[in-house]
Amino acid sequence: MHFGADQPLRLDCGVDLSPFQIAYQTYGELNADRSNAILICHALTGDQHVANVHPVTGKPGWWETLVGPGRPIDPKHYFIICSNVIGGCMGSTGPASINPATGKVWGLDFPVITIPDMVRAQAMLIDRLGIDTLFAVVGGSMGGMQVLQWTAAYPARVYSALAIACSTRHSAQNIAFHELGRQAVMADPDWHNGGYADRGIHPHRGLAVARMAAHITYLSDAALHRKFGRRMQDRELPTFSFDADFQVESYLRYQGSSFVERFDANSYLYLTRAMDYFDIAADHGGVLAKAFAGIKTRLCVVSFTSDWLFPTSESRALVHALNASSARVSFAEIETDRGHDAFLLDVPEFFDISRAFLQSAGKARGLKDS
Amino acid sequence: MHFGADQPLRLDCGVDLSPFQIAYQTYGELNADRSNAILICHALTGDQHVANVHPVTGKPGWWETLVGPGRPIDPKHYFIICSNVIGGCMGSTGPASINPATGKVWGLDFPVITIPDMVRAQAMLIDRLGIDTLFAVVGGSMGGMQVLQWTAAYPARVYSALAIACSTRHSAQNIAFHELGRQAVMADPDWHNGGYADRGIHPHRGLAVARMAAHITYLSDAALHRKFGRRMQDRELPTFSFDADFQVESYLRYQGSSFVERFDANSYLYLTRAMDYFDIAADHGGVLAKAFAGIKTRLCVVSFTSDWLFPTSESRALVHALNASSARVSFAEIETDRGHDAFLLDVPEFFDISRAFLQSAGKARGLKDS
Repeated sequence: MHFGADQPLRLDCGVDLSPFQIAYQTYGELNADRSNAILICHALTGDQHVANVHPVTGKPGWWETLVGPGRPIDPKHYFIICSNVIGGCMGSTGPASINPATGKVWGLDFPVITIPDMVRAQAMLIDRLGIDTLFAVVGGSMGGMQVLQWTAAYPARVYSALAIACSTRHSAQNIAFHELGRQAVMADPDWHNGGYADRGIHPHRGLAVARMAAHITYLSDAALHRKFGRRMQDRELPTFSFDADFQVESYLRYQGSSFVERFDANSYLYLTRAMDYFDIAADHGGVLAKAFAGIKTRLCVVSFTSDWLFPTSESRALVHALNASSARVSFAEIETDRGHDAFLLDVPEFFDISRAFLQSAGKARGLKDS
Repeated sequence: MHFGADQPLRLDCGVDLSPFQIAYQTYGELNADRSNAILICHALTGDQHVANVHPVTGKPGWWETLVGPGRPIDPKHYFIICSNVIGGCMGSTGPASINPATGKVWGLDFPVITIPDMVRAQAMLIDRLGIDTLFAVVGGSMGGMQVLQWTAAYPARVYSALAIACSTRHSAQNIAFHELGRQAVMADPDWHNGGYADRGIHPHRGLAVARMAAHITYLSDAALHRKFGRRMQDRELPTFSFDADFQVESYLRYQGSSFVERFDANSYLYLTRAMDYFDIAADHGGVLAKAFAGIKTRLCVVSFTSDWLFPTSESRALVHALNASSARVSFAEIETDRGHDAFLLDVPEFFDISRAFLQSAGKARGLKDS
């Protein structure tokens, strides 16, 4: 979707981004009273290809466990929308796009964006699609941050909200891991202060290291132990070298090298930065409850026991704030050893809770068969 | 201390390292019956400068909290020895040393070393110093691994052993973090497959990223939150840039950049590899208790509640194995929010326990005034 010079996106940094583009996918049909739209918000390295084969990797959609025929979010019942975030690299305007003022790739001249900026762009897309109120906004991790931002900024436009494995602000440890990833990208001489595109290169090595670091944080210690332990790769004895002796090493190397084929390094910098800046309470005098004062949105907050990136304690703090603002909120902490990644995996209890929450909200909303 | 061609160090990888050098420091005096020697084993990025000003950084010794006049390990009572590990870069032979066969820096031609190799070299040093039985072997983290290896390999030469914040084998998550660090170093084009020394350069950027990653694992989430939270650096509002807006970012950058001034990148690869390979039980049919069967050494195992790199569960597994081998072991889990780093910090309860353990062992050993 193209937004012309007459419809700039006002960014938190003060810049008006214009023109700009939002790439999105939809599944299912909008009903007659436009009341069955669900917006899915993707995570840091996700994109709009929720439930279709990915055009670059050829892999299934990243949330086919939750979204699809017979799944809790079924296109038979809902009009499902997912857009690539502003700052992303799968078709929406971001640092890898062409800067119309120069005719060259933006690179680091692209303005720094925030989670509220992403949501503001999504709201413009939803307007354009003729949807006033979303039946639900759903997302995990950075997607969950967008869900919370939608709820705080546009409560009247969000009938229900499902925020998974997220937080209302990024912790110091999370900022530290992101900064580590950014420094890995910036340490790669092929990064050229963000100007690699003009040179026809890409800081593959630095971005792969950043991805490896992030990937460790997505899994739990227990999950790594269960999946790999200290098992060797194709051998029984150590090679006494720096080859990937351990399975966990070759797994990580693969995660790094496959990621760089589909993701832009500058986008990675911008999106991690947006997450680091995120702090809903800060815009409300530091009082989280004020951010959600008077909202009518039905919320469901989900956390996973072994998620150490967005631990349950942060979800609980959010739920307390929502209770303090008399919001309608349910909360589920799901027992799993799979870490932060659990929201993308086959975790039946999570699906059951999601389905029940949406069905109950659908009934209240008067949706048929949902 | 120089070991000539007649005294090779037999390495686990099958190579005989010869000639080689061990750099060490001592504090205090060996008593007449040579019964008051304490060997301190240093951690990954430590060295022999336990309790004296560091010759490169000008900073105080890294364990002056524990070692020194009036401290639990007081040179008035003990003859204290600390040697730089084999593979290190502070004077002991390692990948940054000259390969006598070529006259050039070893680089990646240096043989891969293990924790048992480090301990074997220390035993040769102790022999040379005329010490048969060490009163105590003491260390944290990688130093703790050496303590456990000493106890398992030379139980008759270790009267007492104080193993802090360590484990009998490296976990999958720990291997993953080390592999991340190694990949960061190797991604730096200045690394030149380990051959940077001949070119007069050093892979500063990659090593700094590796250090940043490691440093995050040394602190707890709570400690990072307490120290930095989301506080900004010299400003109140975000810059909307990739500058170090948050204090935790500039702290990490400093940790990375100061480390590379004092540490060799190849050494970092070799020492992390040694830790990854460490698995005492593996040499005893996978049964940890067998590694310690029949030992008379008095052991004290210390863990810290917020240490997620070497969590208490691993210390407890060790203590269970020691109990199963009827070893004399005491165990203390110390409550602190300071993470793995706690063993280097001012934690009074840890000092009290160390002092009491050594005093009690000293009394049994017939040491005066200890």
